[in-house]
Amino acid sequence: MSDQKEISFKNNPICKLFNIKYPIIQAGMVWVSGAKLAAAASNHGCLGIIGAGSMKPDLLRQHLQKAKQLSQNPHALAVNIPLLYKYVEEQIEVSLSEGIRIFFTSAGSPKKYTQYLKDKGATVVHVTSSPELALKCQAAGVDAVVCEGFEAGGHNGRDEITTMCLIPQVADKLSIPIIAAGGIGDGRTMAAAMCLGSDAVQIGTRFLMTRESSAHDNFKEAILKAQGGDTKLMMKKYVPVRLLKNKFYEQIEEAENRCASVEELVTILGKGRAKAGMLDGDMESGELEIGQISALMNDLPSVEEMVNNLLIQYQRTINKF
Amino acid sequence: MSDQKEISFKNNPICKLFNIKYPIIQAGMVWVSGAKLAAAASNHGCLGIIGAGSMKPDLLRQHLQKAKQLSQNPHALAVNIPLLYKYVEEQIEVSLSEGIRIFFTSAGSPKKYTQYLKDKGATVVHVTSSPELALKCQAAGVDAVVCEGFEAGGHNGRDEITTMCLIPQVADKLSIPIIAAGGIGDGRTMAAAMCLGSDAVQIGTRFLMTRESSAHDNFKEAILKAQGGDTKLMMKKYVPVRLLKNKFYEQIEEAENRCASVEELVTILGKGRAKAGMLDGDMESGELEIGQISALMNDLPSVEEMVNNLLIQYQRTINKF
Repeated sequence: MSDQKEISFKNNPICKLFNIKYPIIQAGMVWVSGAKLAAAASNHGCLGIIGAGSMKPDLLRQHLQKAKQLSQNPHALAVNIPLLYKYVEEQIEVSLSEGIRIFFTSAGSPKKYTQYLKDKGATVVHVTSSPELALKCQAAGVDAVVCEGFEAGGHNGRDEITTMCLIPQVADKLSIPIIAAGGIGDGRTMAAAMCLGSDAVQIGTRFLMTRESSAHDNFKEAILKAQGGDTKLMMKKYVPVRLLKNKFYEQIEEAENRCASVEELVTILGKGRAKAGMLDGDMESGELEIGQISALMNDLPSVEEMVNNLLIQYQRTINKF
Repeated sequence: MSDQKEISFKNNPICKLFNIKYPIIQAGMVWVSGAKLAAAASNHGCLGIIGAGSMKPDLLRQHLQKAKQLSQNPHALAVNIPLLYKYVEEQIEVSLSEGIRIFFTSAGSPKKYTQYLKDKGATVVHVTSSPELALKCQAAGVDAVVCEGFEAGGHNGRDEITTMCLIPQVADKLSIPIIAAGGIGDGRTMAAAMCLGSDAVQIGTRFLMTRESSAHDNFKEAILKAQGGDTKLMMKKYVPVRLLKNKFYEQIEEAENRCASVEELVTILGKGRAKAGMLDGDMESGELEIGQISALMNDLPSVEEMVNNLLIQYQRTINKF
């Protein structure tokens, strides 16, 4: 991989912060990023994040233990804890007791746990979707922010600020390192994010589309077929979420087109739909959370192959200048 | 400007196509891009476009004549003709008779006038917002496409594909040159667009925010204050348009939140609101079309200063690699 060797990120602030080779963060994703994916990411130069959002504390402990067994770089394993779920405090304690010292928090106030975690010796990153909230994260004492654009999969900001517009604004305002998320799925988009002023990228959809992710094969196959307009940000009245279009999406769309109440949207959503779709492969009634960059996915490599290909294309992209 | 001299775009396909120094297109914008702005853009290495959408044929002719007087590079003057307005054919004939040989068409089928214009010796570019439509433009024989992301100002695509996700998809599919639009307002965002696979950028908001644009000072001052979430894509049921939030926006928002009919939206919109807001400076009831990158605007330079600053920052951005 002679192309790759030319790339050096040794002065990159995110590589230093996490002691990783590449400024690439494998995003924590519900039902998709367990031990196997996070360990693979950590083994190939990236930060590997276990998405705790979909795990009860016992299951999280199992994944953490397994990830440590599978990883040659356990220092490069982290957890993502969405602060809106219950079990948050148990998840934090389980993670600390298993030796995790990198926490990505999201969907809540960065003030709530940052100081507690830092007192335990942890590095803390909060996920945000607007310049104003990014400033609040910095004020709360986090070590870095993930700034996530409108094109990102899963739950999403209300201001609909795209990665292209979000990152330069945040870069102008913050002094801590910035990780761009949303729309990053290959070497070109990674290079673009670095031009915009981010120090690193957080990648969801492209990591979901590897052999090591626990997304169901049906879901992966549906993403292979997805085109540009096949995802949409829905349920803005409740909790905005970007979905791959399917029968469930159509139900939500129909309800939103007639201005259904939040209560009705919550009733239609019901319980367990994300698991049914993403983990169990129900392509009709499952909730399929995925980024807009899914349209670019046309293969299903291993994490190692994916990271290599991405870096080769990154190198080629910046060599054009 | 020693920084600038290092940049060379001599093999750039868009620079060659239009015989311009920089791969920068000043976007055609209703009520904003008349003779003065287009001439200034053409005088400083860019392609200058007169936005014919807001002009009756006679007024268009006046602007074309004035632009030719003001420009040292009249070959770098073009017109943008939205195909949904009346007077399309008169606008084409006026432009041809005034010697214009570069046409940007939008908001309609690229099949309709491309061959006719090419038979007259013109270069034709069509504006599109999805990979599928970009392929249709190529099939229709256009010389290049403008691919415009969700963050762009004014009228916008229905698929909500952001620039970050749109450009790589189009670059993978098309063999003709690609001009990226939407979210490009400084040297960082221009460099990002080039990484994504575009050959050039079309810039609206940043050109509107120059002293030469005919946008009203009230509008320019409002944009100086705009923050990340201060624009939103509205009227998706009718013709999607990105607006700066004001009292008129709130009326539309209120109507959309109760699922008002298209007829009611059209009634609220009424006639002449874009002119009232953008040209005449009515900040309450005017329709203020602007891109999401408006949040990044914090000065009001001349076109010359703006282009120079943008290129210096572009150079600095790519030098980081």
